[in-house]
Amino acid sequence: MSKISWRPGTMVYPVPAALVSVGATPDEWNLLTVAWIGTVCSDPAMLSISVRPERHSFSLIEKTGEFTVNLTTVDMARSVDWCGVRSGAQYDKWKETGLVPIPGEKVKSPTVEQSPLSIECVVRSRTDLGTHTMFLAEVVNVRADSRYMDPETGRFMLEKANLLAYVHGHYYALGDMIGKFGFSVQKKKPEATKKKKQEASEKNK
Amino acid sequence: MSKISWRPGTMVYPVPAALVSVGATPDEWNLLTVAWIGTVCSDPAMLSISVRPERHSFSLIEKTGEFTVNLTTVDMARSVDWCGVRSGAQYDKWKETGLVPIPGEKVKSPTVEQSPLSIECVVRSRTDLGTHTMFLAEVVNVRADSRYMDPETGRFMLEKANLLAYVHGHYYALGDMIGKFGFSVQKKKPEATKKKKQEASEKNK
Repeated sequence: MSKISWRPGTMVYPVPAALVSVGATPDEWNLLTVAWIGTVCSDPAMLSISVRPERHSFSLIEKTGEFTVNLTTVDMARSVDWCGVRSGAQYDKWKETGLVPIPGEKVKSPTVEQSPLSIECVVRSRTDLGTHTMFLAEVVNVRADSRYMDPETGRFMLEKANLLAYVHGHYYALGDMIGKFGFSVQKKKPEATKKKKQEASEKNK
Repeated sequence: MSKISWRPGTMVYPVPAALVSVGATPDEWNLLTVAWIGTVCSDPAMLSISVRPERHSFSLIEKTGEFTVNLTTVDMARSVDWCGVRSGAQYDKWKETGLVPIPGEKVKSPTVEQSPLSIECVVRSRTDLGTHTMFLAEVVNVRADSRYMDPETGRFMLEKANLLAYVHGHYYALGDMIGKFGFSVQKKKPEATKKKKQEASEKNK
Protein backbone atom coordinates (compact mmCIF):
# COMPACT_ATOMS: atom_id res chain seq x y z
CA MET A 1 0.00 0.00 0.00
CA SER A 2 1.14 3.55 -0.61
CA LYS A 3 0.44 6.94 0.94
CA ILE A 4 -0.63 10.04 -0.94
CA SER A 5 0.05 13.46 0.58
CA TRP A 6 -2.64 16.13 0.70
CA ARG A 7 -2.54 19.71 1.74
CA PRO A 8 -3.30 20.30 5.45
CA GLY A 9 -6.96 19.82 6.36
CA THR A 10 -9.35 18.99 9.17
CA MET A 11 -9.66 15.22 9.03
CA VAL A 12 -10.14 14.03 12.63
CA TYR A 13 -13.18 11.69 12.47
CA PRO A 14 -15.66 10.45 13.65
CA VAL A 15 -16.74 13.42 15.77
CA PRO A 16 -20.01 14.35 17.49
CA ALA A 17 -22.55 16.57 15.76
CA ALA A 18 -23.40 18.41 18.96
CA LEU A 19 -26.16 20.93 19.46
CA VAL A 20 -24.82 23.80 21.53
CA SER A 21 -27.51 25.88 23.23
CA VAL A 22 -26.76 29.46 24.23
CA GLY A 23 -28.31 32.65 25.63
CA ALA A 24 -29.35 33.95 29.03
CA THR A 25 -33.06 34.56 28.51
CA PRO A 26 -35.81 32.71 26.59
CA ASP A 27 -35.95 35.43 23.93
CA GLU A 28 -32.24 35.06 23.12
CA TRP A 29 -31.95 31.27 23.55
CA ASN A 30 -30.46 29.84 20.38
CA LEU A 31 -28.94 26.64 19.01
CA LEU A 32 -25.92 25.97 16.87
CA THR A 33 -24.45 22.73 15.56
CA VAL A 34 -20.81 22.17 16.45
CA ALA A 35 -18.59 19.34 15.21
CA TRP A 36 -15.34 21.04 16.27
CA ILE A 37 -15.72 19.90 19.86
CA GLY A 38 -13.78 17.59 22.15
CA THR A 39 -12.89 16.69 25.70
CA VAL A 40 -9.64 18.33 26.82
CA CYS A 41 -9.32 17.29 30.50
CA SER A 42 -10.81 14.56 32.72
CA ASP A 43 -10.42 16.30 36.09
CA PRO A 44 -11.54 19.03 36.13
CA ALA A 45 -13.88 17.87 33.36
CA MET A 46 -13.29 20.31 30.51
CA LEU A 47 -14.16 20.49 26.84
CA SER A 48 -13.45 22.78 23.91
CA ILE A 49 -15.79 24.09 21.24
CA SER A 50 -14.63 26.10 18.25
CA VAL A 51 -17.02 28.63 16.69
CA ARG A 52 -16.69 31.08 13.81
CA PRO A 53 -17.00 34.67 15.16
CA GLU A 54 -19.51 35.55 12.43
CA ARG A 55 -22.03 33.03 13.76
CA HIS A 56 -25.05 34.52 15.51
CA SER A 57 -24.45 32.52 18.71
CA PHE A 58 -20.84 33.63 19.06
CA SER A 59 -21.64 36.91 20.82
CA LEU A 60 -24.13 35.14 23.10
CA ILE A 61 -21.39 32.77 24.32
CA GLU A 62 -19.09 35.74 24.83
CA LYS A 63 -21.74 37.73 26.69
CA THR A 64 -22.91 35.01 29.07
CA GLY A 65 -19.70 32.95 29.33
CA GLU A 66 -21.92 29.86 29.41
CA PHE A 67 -23.27 27.25 27.03
CA THR A 68 -24.76 23.77 27.06
CA VAL A 69 -23.58 20.88 24.87
CA ASN A 70 -26.45 18.56 23.92
CA LEU A 71 -25.56 15.14 22.51
CA THR A 72 -27.61 14.25 19.45
CA THR A 73 -29.29 11.14 18.09
CA VAL A 74 -30.27 9.71 14.72
CA ASP A 75 -33.86 10.87 15.36
CA MET A 76 -32.56 14.43 15.70
CA ALA A 77 -30.39 14.35 12.54
CA ARG A 78 -32.60 16.59 10.40
CA SER A 79 -32.76 19.25 13.14
CA VAL A 80 -29.01 18.98 13.78
CA ASP A 81 -28.28 19.56 10.11
CA TRP A 82 -30.78 22.40 9.87
CA CYS A 83 -29.27 24.19 12.90
CA GLY A 84 -25.84 23.87 11.26
CA VAL A 85 -26.99 25.44 7.99
CA ARG A 86 -29.43 28.15 9.11
CA SER A 87 -28.77 31.19 11.32
CA GLY A 88 -30.53 32.22 14.51
CA ALA A 89 -30.43 35.78 13.15
CA GLN A 90 -33.08 34.79 10.57
CA TYR A 91 -34.99 31.97 12.26
CA ASP A 92 -36.40 30.88 15.58
CA LYS A 93 -34.60 27.54 15.46
CA TRP A 94 -36.69 26.05 18.28
CA LYS A 95 -39.93 26.76 16.44
CA GLU A 96 -38.58 25.59 13.09
CA THR A 97 -37.14 22.28 14.33
CA GLY A 98 -39.51 21.39 17.15
CA LEU A 99 -36.60 21.07 19.55
CA VAL A 100 -37.76 22.17 23.00
CA PRO A 101 -35.67 24.34 25.35
CA ILE A 102 -35.99 23.71 29.06
CA PRO A 103 -34.30 26.03 31.57
CA GLY A 104 -30.71 25.21 32.52
CA GLU A 105 -29.93 24.04 36.04
CA LYS A 106 -26.48 25.48 36.80
CA VAL A 107 -26.22 27.80 33.78
CA LYS A 108 -28.54 30.26 32.08
CA SER A 109 -28.30 28.52 28.68
CA PRO A 110 -31.16 26.09 28.07
CA THR A 111 -31.11 22.30 27.76
CA VAL A 112 -32.56 20.59 24.67
CA GLU A 113 -35.34 18.39 26.03
CA GLN A 114 -34.94 15.76 23.26
CA SER A 115 -31.21 15.29 23.93
CA PRO A 116 -30.24 12.11 25.83
CA LEU A 117 -27.45 13.93 27.65
CA SER A 118 -26.67 17.61 28.11
CA ILE A 119 -23.46 19.11 29.47
CA GLU A 120 -23.64 22.52 31.19
CA CYS A 121 -20.43 24.50 30.72
CA VAL A 122 -18.78 27.69 31.96
CA VAL A 123 -16.18 29.32 29.68
CA ARG A 124 -12.67 29.49 31.17
CA SER A 125 -10.75 30.93 28.20
CA ARG A 126 -11.09 32.11 24.63
CA THR A 127 -8.41 31.76 21.93
CA ASP A 128 -8.65 33.20 18.42
CA LEU A 129 -7.02 30.69 16.08
CA GLY A 130 -8.01 31.82 12.57
CA THR A 131 -11.38 30.99 11.05
CA HIS A 132 -12.46 29.72 14.48
CA THR A 133 -12.29 30.89 18.06
CA MET A 134 -11.77 28.13 20.61
CA PHE A 135 -13.61 28.30 23.92
CA LEU A 136 -12.21 26.14 26.72
CA ALA A 137 -14.96 25.45 29.22
CA GLU A 138 -15.39 23.61 32.47
CA VAL A 139 -18.27 21.18 32.86
CA VAL A 140 -20.38 22.27 35.83
CA ASN A 141 -23.27 19.84 35.46
CA VAL A 142 -24.40 16.85 33.38
CA ARG A 143 -28.12 16.24 32.79
CA ALA A 144 -29.19 12.78 31.69
CA ASP A 145 -32.57 11.86 30.33
CA SER A 146 -34.31 9.50 32.74
CA ARG A 147 -35.69 7.35 29.93
CA TYR A 148 -32.16 5.94 29.44
CA MET A 149 -31.67 4.99 33.09
CA ASP A 150 -31.88 1.27 33.76
CA PRO A 151 -34.59 1.07 36.46
CA GLU A 152 -32.94 -2.00 38.04
CA THR A 153 -29.28 -0.98 38.16
CA GLY A 154 -29.50 2.81 37.86
CA ARG A 155 -26.95 2.63 35.03
CA PHE A 156 -27.24 5.20 32.23
CA MET A 157 -27.64 3.25 28.99
CA LEU A 158 -26.03 5.67 26.54
CA GLU A 159 -25.79 2.76 24.07
CA LYS A 160 -29.60 2.88 23.71
CA ALA A 161 -29.62 6.54 22.68
CA ASN A 162 -28.62 5.92 19.03
CA LEU A 163 -26.01 8.70 18.99
CA LEU A 164 -25.21 10.56 15.79
CA ALA A 165 -21.66 10.74 14.41
CA TYR A 166 -20.25 13.11 11.80
CA VAL A 167 -17.60 12.07 9.29
CA HIS A 168 -16.32 14.46 6.63
CA GLY A 169 -19.65 15.88 5.46
CA HIS A 170 -21.83 12.89 6.33
CA TYR A 171 -23.93 11.94 9.34
CA TYR A 172 -23.81 8.32 10.54
CA ALA A 173 -25.55 6.13 13.08
CA LEU A 174 -23.33 3.99 15.27
CA GLY A 175 -23.12 0.32 14.33
CA ASP A 176 -21.90 -2.80 16.11
CA MET A 177 -20.21 -2.61 19.50
CA ILE A 178 -16.67 -3.93 18.94
CA GLY A 179 -15.39 -4.20 22.51
CA LYS A 180 -15.09 -2.60 25.91
CA PHE A 181 -12.10 -0.48 26.89
CA GLY A 182 -9.44 -2.97 28.05
CA PHE A 183 -10.83 -5.93 26.08
CA SER A 184 -7.44 -6.58 24.47
CA VAL A 185 -5.83 -7.49 27.81
CA GLN A 186 -8.80 -9.09 29.54
CA LYS A 187 -8.23 -12.64 30.69
CA LYS A 188 -11.01 -15.03 29.73
CA LYS A 189 -12.68 -16.41 32.83
CA PRO A 190 -12.39 -20.20 33.07
CA GLU A 191 -15.73 -21.98 32.72
CA ALA A 192 -15.69 -23.21 36.35
CA THR A 193 -15.38 -19.67 37.76
CA LYS A 194 -18.13 -18.45 35.46
CA LYS A 195 -20.46 -21.20 36.69
CA LYS A 196 -19.71 -20.48 40.36
CA LYS A 197 -20.37 -16.79 39.82
CA GLN A 198 -23.65 -17.56 38.09
CA GLU A 199 -24.75 -19.80 40.95
CA ALA A 200 -23.82 -17.15 43.50
CA SER A 201 -25.66 -14.44 41.58
CA GLU A 202 -28.74 -16.64 41.28
CA LYS A 203 -28.72 -17.25 45.04
CA ASN A 204 -28.85 -13.52 45.59
CA LYS A 205 -31.90 -13.03 43.42
CA MET B 1 -39.50 12.87 30.19
CA SER B 2 -37.35 14.14 33.05
CA LYS B 3 -33.71 15.08 33.52
CA ILE B 4 -31.44 13.74 36.23
CA SER B 5 -28.39 15.78 37.25
CA TRP B 6 -24.96 14.16 37.64
CA ARG B 7 -21.72 15.49 38.89
CA PRO B 8 -19.51 17.03 36.16
CA GLY B 9 -17.92 14.48 33.83
CA THR B 10 -16.45 13.95 30.38
CA MET B 11 -19.42 12.92 28.27
CA VAL B 12 -18.81 14.30 24.77
CA TYR B 13 -19.43 11.31 22.46
CA PRO B 14 -18.89 9.72 19.95
CA VAL B 15 -15.20 10.56 19.61
CA PRO B 16 -12.33 9.05 17.61
CA ALA B 17 -10.05 6.43 19.16
CA ALA B 18 -6.98 7.86 17.48
CA LEU B 19 -3.51 6.37 17.46
CA VAL B 20 -0.99 9.14 18.03
CA SER B 21 2.54 8.29 16.91
CA VAL B 22 5.49 10.12 18.43
CA GLY B 23 9.29 10.23 18.57
CA ALA B 24 12.10 11.51 16.37
CA THR B 25 14.06 8.33 15.69
CA PRO B 26 13.07 4.70 15.05
CA ASP B 27 14.32 3.62 18.48
CA GLU B 28 12.07 6.11 20.26
CA TRP B 29 9.03 5.89 17.97
CA ASN B 30 6.00 5.05 20.09
CA LEU B 31 2.20 4.94 19.90
CA LEU B 32 -0.52 6.07 22.28
CA THR B 33 -4.28 5.93 22.01
CA VAL B 34 -6.03 9.28 22.41
CA ALA B 35 -9.78 9.86 22.61
CA TRP B 36 -9.44 13.40 23.98
CA ILE B 37 -8.83 14.87 20.55
CA GLY B 38 -10.70 17.28 18.30
CA THR B 39 -10.49 19.81 15.52
CA VAL B 40 -10.17 23.37 16.83
CA CYS B 41 -9.77 25.45 13.65
CA SER B 42 -10.47 24.97 9.94
CA ASP B 43 -7.97 27.49 8.55
CA PRO B 44 -5.24 27.10 9.59
CA ALA B 45 -6.18 23.45 10.12
CA MET B 46 -5.54 22.82 13.81
CA LEU B 47 -6.41 20.11 16.30
CA SER B 48 -5.97 19.49 20.00
CA ILE B 49 -4.87 16.36 21.82
CA SER B 50 -4.89 16.03 25.59
CA VAL B 51 -2.38 13.69 27.25
CA ARG B 52 -1.62 12.81 30.87
CA PRO B 53 1.93 13.99 31.73
CA GLU B 54 2.74 10.60 33.29
CA ARG B 55 2.33 8.82 29.96
CA HIS B 56 5.53 7.61 28.34
CA SER B 57 4.87 9.50 25.10
CA PHE B 58 4.29 12.84 26.81
CA SER B 59 7.99 13.78 27.01
CA LEU B 60 8.51 12.69 23.39
CA ILE B 61 5.83 15.13 22.23
CA GLU B 62 7.41 17.84 24.36
CA LYS B 63 10.90 17.11 23.08
CA THR B 64 10.12 16.96 19.37
CA GLY B 65 7.11 19.32 19.24
CA GLU B 66 5.64 17.00 16.64
CA PHE B 67 3.22 14.09 16.44
CA THR B 68 1.06 12.24 13.93
CA VAL B 69 -2.64 11.45 14.41
CA ASN B 70 -3.61 8.17 12.73
CA LEU B 71 -7.31 7.46 12.22
CA THR B 72 -8.28 3.95 13.22
CA THR B 73 -10.57 1.25 11.87
CA VAL B 74 -12.57 -1.69 13.21
CA ASP B 75 -9.80 -4.03 12.04
CA MET B 76 -7.35 -2.12 14.24
CA ALA B 77 -9.58 -2.12 17.37
CA ARG B 78 -7.60 -4.68 19.36
CA SER B 79 -4.32 -2.80 18.74
CA VAL B 80 -5.97 0.54 19.53
CA ASP B 81 -7.22 -0.78 22.85
CA TRP B 82 -3.89 -2.42 23.67
CA CYS B 83 -1.97 0.82 22.97
CA GLY B 84 -4.36 2.63 25.31
CA VAL B 85 -3.83 0.18 28.17
CA ARG B 86 -0.12 -0.67 27.92
CA SER B 87 2.89 1.65 28.20
CA GLY B 88 5.72 2.18 25.74
CA ALA B 89 8.05 2.17 28.75
CA GLN B 90 7.45 -1.58 29.13
CA TYR B 91 6.66 -2.72 25.59
CA ASP B 92 7.66 -2.23 21.98
CA LYS B 93 4.11 -1.46 20.89
CA TRP B 94 4.89 -1.87 17.19
CA LYS B 95 6.21 -5.38 17.72
CA GLU B 96 3.40 -6.37 20.07
CA THR B 97 0.55 -5.13 17.86
CA GLY B 98 1.93 -5.66 14.37
CA LEU B 99 1.30 -2.02 13.53
CA VAL B 100 4.01 -0.85 11.14
CA PRO B 101 5.74 2.55 11.39
CA ILE B 102 6.77 4.23 8.17
CA PRO B 103 8.84 7.42 8.23
CA GLY B 104 6.94 10.70 8.43
CA GLU B 105 6.98 13.05 5.47
CA LYS B 106 6.90 16.56 7.00
CA VAL B 107 7.53 15.54 10.64
CA LYS B 108 9.90 13.16 12.39
CA SER B 109 7.10 11.15 14.03
CA PRO B 110 6.16 8.04 12.04
CA THR B 111 2.95 7.20 10.20
CA VAL B 112 1.05 4.00 10.99
CA GLU B 113 1.01 2.08 7.72
CA GLN B 114 -2.35 0.39 8.46
CA SER B 115 -4.14 3.70 9.12
CA PRO B 116 -6.42 4.93 6.30
CA LEU B 117 -5.50 8.55 7.03
CA SER B 118 -2.68 10.12 9.03
CA ILE B 119 -2.38 13.75 10.05
CA GLU B 120 1.11 15.20 10.60
CA CYS B 121 1.11 17.93 13.26
CA VAL B 122 3.43 20.54 14.74
CA VAL B 123 2.73 21.69 18.31
CA ARG B 124 1.89 25.39 18.63
CA SER B 125 1.05 25.58 22.36
CA ARG B 126 0.82 23.55 25.54
CA THR B 127 -1.69 24.16 28.35
CA ASP B 128 -1.74 22.28 31.66
CA LEU B 129 -5.38 21.85 32.63
CA GLY B 130 -5.37 19.32 35.48
CA THR B 131 -5.10 15.57 34.87
CA HIS B 132 -4.36 16.36 31.22
CA THR B 133 -2.13 18.71 29.27
CA MET B 134 -3.63 20.02 26.05
CA PHE B 135 -1.41 20.40 23.00
CA LEU B 136 -2.73 22.67 20.25
CA ALA B 137 -1.12 21.71 16.97
CA GLU B 138 -1.19 22.81 13.38
CA VAL B 139 -1.74 20.24 10.66
CA VAL B 140 1.21 20.38 8.26
CA ASN B 141 0.39 17.37 6.09
CA VAL B 142 -2.32 14.74 5.55
CA ARG B 143 -1.37 11.29 4.25
CA ALA B 144 -4.12 9.18 2.73
CA ASP B 145 -3.88 5.49 1.95
CA SER B 146 -4.10 4.99 -1.81
CA ARG B 147 -6.31 1.90 -1.43
CA TYR B 148 -9.21 4.23 -0.51
CA MET B 149 -8.80 6.47 -3.57
CA ASP B 150 -11.47 5.97 -6.20
CA PRO B 151 -9.40 5.21 -9.34
CA GLU B 152 -12.03 6.85 -11.58
CA THR B 153 -12.78 10.07 -9.73
CA GLY B 154 -9.72 10.46 -7.47
CA ARG B 155 -12.09 10.92 -4.53
CA PHE B 156 -10.94 9.62 -1.13
CA MET B 157 -13.56 7.14 0.05
CA LEU B 158 -13.26 7.55 3.82
CA GLU B 159 -16.65 5.83 4.12
CA LYS B 160 -15.00 2.56 3.01
CA ALA B 161 -12.41 2.66 5.81
CA ASN B 162 -14.75 1.33 8.53
CA LEU B 163 -13.67 3.94 11.09
CA LEU B 164 -13.72 3.17 14.80
CA ALA B 165 -15.69 5.32 17.27
CA TYR B 166 -15.37 5.46 21.06
CA VAL B 167 -18.35 6.03 23.34
CA HIS B 168 -17.99 6.05 27.12
CA GLY B 169 -15.80 2.96 27.53
CA HIS B 170 -16.92 1.11 24.40
CA TYR B 171 -15.62 0.90 20.83
CA TYR B 172 -18.14 0.97 17.99
CA ALA B 173 -18.20 0.56 14.24
CA LEU B 174 -20.09 3.18 12.28
CA GLY B 175 -23.52 2.14 11.01
CA ASP B 176 -25.92 3.54 8.43
CA MET B 177 -25.24 6.83 6.66
CA ILE B 178 -28.11 9.13 7.68
CA GLY B 179 -27.55 12.09 5.39
CA LYS B 180 -25.09 14.52 3.86
CA PHE B 181 -24.33 17.90 5.43
CA GLY B 182 -27.09 20.22 4.20
CA PHE B 183 -29.63 17.46 3.49
CA SER B 184 -32.28 19.20 5.61
CA VAL B 185 -32.47 22.18 3.25
CA GLN B 186 -31.80 20.44 -0.04
CA LYS B 187 -34.51 20.92 -2.62
CA LYS B 188 -35.65 17.74 -4.27
CA LYS B 189 -34.97 17.92 -7.98
CA PRO B 190 -38.14 17.69 -10.07
CA GLU B 191 -38.35 14.48 -12.12
CA ALA B 192 -38.06 16.33 -15.46
CA THR B 193 -34.76 17.97 -14.48
CA LYS B 194 -33.41 14.67 -13.21
CA LYS B 195 -34.23 13.00 -16.52
CA LYS B 196 -32.62 15.79 -18.58
CA LYS B 197 -29.47 15.61 -16.45
CA GLN B 198 -29.33 11.87 -16.86
CA GLU B 199 -29.63 12.17 -20.62
CA ALA B 200 -26.91 14.80 -20.71
CA SER B 201 -24.61 12.72 -18.55
CA GLU B 202 -25.20 9.67 -20.72
CA LYS B 203 -24.34 11.68 -23.84
CA ASN B 204 -21.00 12.55 -22.26
CA LYS B 205 -20.04 8.94 -21.58
